[in-house]
Amino acid sequence: MSRNIKMVVAYEGTHYAGFQRQAGGVKTIQGALEEAIAQITGSMPNVIGAGRTDAGVHALGQVVHFHSETRLKEGQLLNALNAVLPRDIVICEVSEVPAEFHSRYSALSKTYSYRIWNDPVRPVFHREWLYHYKYPLDTAVMREAASFIVGQHDFKSFQASGSSVKTTVRTVHFCELMSEGPEITIRINADGFLYHMVRNIVGTLILVGTGRMSLAGFKAVLAACDRNAAGPTAPASGLCLEEVFYPEMKPEI
Amino acid sequence: MSRNIKMVVAYEGTHYAGFQRQAGGVKTIQGALEEAIAQITGSMPNVIGAGRTDAGVHALGQVVHFHSETRLKEGQLLNALNAVLPRDIVICEVSEVPAEFHSRYSALSKTYSYRIWNDPVRPVFHREWLYHYKYPLDTAVMREAASFIVGQHDFKSFQASGSSVKTTVRTVHFCELMSEGPEITIRINADGFLYHMVRNIVGTLILVGTGRMSLAGFKAVLAACDRNAAGPTAPASGLCLEEVFYPEMKPEI
Repeated sequence: MSRNIKMVVAYEGTHYAGFQRQAGGVKTIQGALEEAIAQITGSMPNVIGAGRTDAGVHALGQVVHFHSETRLKEGQLLNALNAVLPRDIVICEVSEVPAEFHSRYSALSKTYSYRIWNDPVRPVFHREWLYHYKYPLDTAVMREAASFIVGQHDFKSFQASGSSVKTTVRTVHFCELMSEGPEITIRINADGFLYHMVRNIVGTLILVGTGRMSLAGFKAVLAACDRNAAGPTAPASGLCLEEVFYPEMKPEI
Repeated sequence: MSRNIKMVVAYEGTHYAGFQRQAGGVKTIQGALEEAIAQITGSMPNVIGAGRTDAGVHALGQVVHFHSETRLKEGQLLNALNAVLPRDIVICEVSEVPAEFHSRYSALSKTYSYRIWNDPVRPVFHREWLYHYKYPLDTAVMREAASFIVGQHDFKSFQASGSSVKTTVRTVHFCELMSEGPEITIRINADGFLYHMVRNIVGTLILVGTGRMSLAGFKAVLAACDRNAAGPTAPASGLCLEEVFYPEMKPEI
């Protein structure tokens, strides 16, 4: 009997060409997971992730699922996979879920974080998880701009140009900005994200933080529905998929 | 005129054979700093550090000093050095200090931290700065044991065997234990540290945290003045030189 296995996965994306398997033998998270599962269970799975993170993007709470005939218990799978996976990928949780669970389609919302090291001096401590921005940022005004994106909006201005999706309307449940010393963390939860959406929002918030864009200007960007209105795409290194939320799964009776 | 330059330095020690320069071309922090300074100022300095951290040990607030004829201003030196230093070493502060300042001999006290990732699953996020200990630890009892070492004691039990120093008496000003999720941080400030002292204290605290050593047993270790009484040396990866304290320097009048 094929089982549906859900896993929570953390990884440092620095040395990977993104989540999604690619032709040409480049290193991907999906590829590494599939190889590890094949090594442990004896058959090659198709691993599907909730978020297809880009090259260099990290995760602390990516969720994946795959179907497998393995008889290994959840804890055995977790330990065996962590023993063979490279040090920059780790399985945090393994659980068997109902057949209808799909890591991407069942997801209600996802939280991404973006970490900025705002100091003239570059960071050393967990530097792979940060974007070093050396000029002063006004976090109070950035926080106010961040509050404008909460709610249901057409986020077309923040979508990478050339993307095609049915609709560019998304609902942002929260967008909070915390700062502690030189480290600024922006956390965004939404029912879905357009391609490069978080990085384009952060790149535009940085314009606001430096004073090169006003709060009214930020509002106008959102209203414009035009990628050219927004700021540059912030680098991948600061971005992290933190958590994926699902409806509570009731066991079948 | 030779100037005395003090610098605060942060580094990830993972890929270095320790602070101190060695024969045979191995990578050291001192060597990397001296090469960078020579490249910028045109003459090879002798860099002296407050703490001679071991292979794999990190620093967020190491303090070094060196004498130089350079006419570069403090901020110019900082930027120029950070531009040529490898990514795992960074200069945080540069200041010219009185000729009598000595990074090691002038120090009043130093703070070291030791970070433990206490979870069955290995860490991914800033994993190079942690020691992964997978079995459950009782942090309340560890915290109580940690309080026993505060004050002036003979720390011979916690000194690496084979070391020779005039006295093994040191004064610990604080030894605190914080835990947040699976991460446990132990911070110790003392007027001086014996070789492997923090790592041997942590290794023994872990015995207490697992229940393999009682609080009375920990007290007896301290009293024994015998390395064989204490627990194993905790790995280098968790250790970090956080801060070095000096008496306030008054400018000469």
